[in-house]
Amino acid sequence: MNVHVEGILNSERLAITRALSFVENAEDLDLSITDLLVQHLGQAYRIGVTGPPGAGKSSLLDRMIEYWRTQDKKVAVISVDPSSPFTGGAILGDRVRMGRHYSDKGVFIRSMATRGSRGGLALRAQDAADIFDAAGYEIIIYETVGVGQVELDVADAADTTIVVLVPESGDDIQAMKAGLMEIADLFIINKSDRQGANQAAAQIQSMLEMRSYAEGEWHPQVVKTNALAGTGISEMMETLVKHQAFLSETGIIRKNFQQRIQAKILSHINRKIQSDFWSVEKINSLEKSLKSEDYRKLGLVELVNNLLNR
Amino acid sequence: MNVHVEGILNSERLAITRALSFVENAEDLDLSITDLLVQHLGQAYRIGVTGPPGAGKSSLLDRMIEYWRTQDKKVAVISVDPSSPFTGGAILGDRVRMGRHYSDKGVFIRSMATRGSRGGLALRAQDAADIFDAAGYEIIIYETVGVGQVELDVADAADTTIVVLVPESGDDIQAMKAGLMEIADLFIINKSDRQGANQAAAQIQSMLEMRSYAEGEWHPQVVKTNALAGTGISEMMETLVKHQAFLSETGIIRKNFQQRIQAKILSHINRKIQSDFWSVEKINSLEKSLKSEDYRKLGLVELVNNLLNR
Repeated sequence: MNVHVEGILNSERLAITRALSFVENAEDLDLSITDLLVQHLGQAYRIGVTGPPGAGKSSLLDRMIEYWRTQDKKVAVISVDPSSPFTGGAILGDRVRMGRHYSDKGVFIRSMATRGSRGGLALRAQDAADIFDAAGYEIIIYETVGVGQVELDVADAADTTIVVLVPESGDDIQAMKAGLMEIADLFIINKSDRQGANQAAAQIQSMLEMRSYAEGEWHPQVVKTNALAGTGISEMMETLVKHQAFLSETGIIRKNFQQRIQAKILSHINRKIQSDFWSVEKINSLEKSLKSEDYRKLGLVELVNNLLNR
Repeated sequence: MNVHVEGILNSERLAITRALSFVENAEDLDLSITDLLVQHLGQAYRIGVTGPPGAGKSSLLDRMIEYWRTQDKKVAVISVDPSSPFTGGAILGDRVRMGRHYSDKGVFIRSMATRGSRGGLALRAQDAADIFDAAGYEIIIYETVGVGQVELDVADAADTTIVVLVPESGDDIQAMKAGLMEIADLFIINKSDRQGANQAAAQIQSMLEMRSYAEGEWHPQVVKTNALAGTGISEMMETLVKHQAFLSETGIIRKNFQQRIQAKILSHINRKIQSDFWSVEKINSLEKSLKSEDYRKLGLVELVNNLLNR
């Protein structure tokens, strides 16, 4: 494995780039990257930013990066694009807009796209985040386009999840899809100079008020911004800083980290015991039963028991 | 288990309703329903209909039901609603519009909603479809709102997948989300009396033409309809009938059925070996290591090996 741990720990760009490529291209997702770096993980603050195409995520990211850079914090952005190769490409265009940070050595921007399998992308993005964490990036941002399971998985991997909408997102808010509403710690109504910004903010606010909260639970905030003009940015950053402080004080940020390690171990072991179980002989036997339609006489439970007791 | 197999096979509504409730409320998804009915499965044609809220899915379903009822075929509709209880409810409103079929004994319409777990809904919908299959429903339609992983899972469970859009879906088509483009066998541009219908159809057509097709592979079709006025419906039904014939002639429909049985068996066995592996002792040991941060010294691979070799 072409991973240069010392180089990553020294934050050398070449070592980081190579490790990222390794993660992106690895046939099997395994524990190797996390294992190599595990002594040096757990320092970074991980943020997920999601929202529909055209909501202005890149301009907002630009503002966030600016803010953290004035504090001399190193920032990594991982753009996760779950769209298919057949229709993809939206995110690459956005990349150009963050161009002015490319020459800044304290900023690292990387796109990751789907390679065939549906499930692996969020895990690969997490491995990439581990690389940045070990390399001393204090802020790690996952950017996604906000449309499906990958976003939910990425939200699980973030300490703070930001959902970016625009004043016209009324319909999207109505049908607030697949749990986006539950995962947000902070809603941004961007392009708030446009008509309907106040209504959109009020609509989300009232949905949030319908929820019940446990004692000490974070109440998601709604902030209106205009990233291009720069309005609302300081309020957004204050809210982010407040949430980060909340996560530290409550110990949630540490718990999140441990849960991610646990999830990695669980999924690794579960894959391992499955591949141990499914010998060629068992697979052949199952396929034979299915082709011959044995299972109609035998019953599925019996068929399963035969496989389990082999 | 309160499942009356004889009653289901006789297509008694009470027996079907009870079995559906059993599937919806069962704590654990297992093979029991499929096992009980397996001798009687594999007769139905399973169709998935997906698309954004407001695209007119219910009116189209109404037309489809009408068509098949004139042929005296029994039709079941399973509405799968992956939205959260916090924001859900869109589908229930639509139900009213199919009301005129409620009194028709050859039509069965059932909604299924998420109960906590993200993963189970598509599997429960498949169990529901098995009940209808055994009860002699020739046509089984899954309806979803087209926004995420559940739709992809439901598409896997359907022989024909229909994606319903409207002329204004241009943006949706551009960003054609999470693989919707790949799963459709038939695109419907509904409300085609509105401006932009031809452009939307042309846009999809050209995206479809960019794809490469294997020899003998189905080429997805695009049909414009206006479900309320009744235009385009006969073309839609002809295309559906054509796809069904294609599936039968190529043997794909039988293969689909076997693959679903296989997937059920695989997922059942994988869950079983996982729960056998994760004894209380192993779980405690893992949690202890995580809390004490043992893994930082030990390394994850070593930690995993200790668990595997226990």
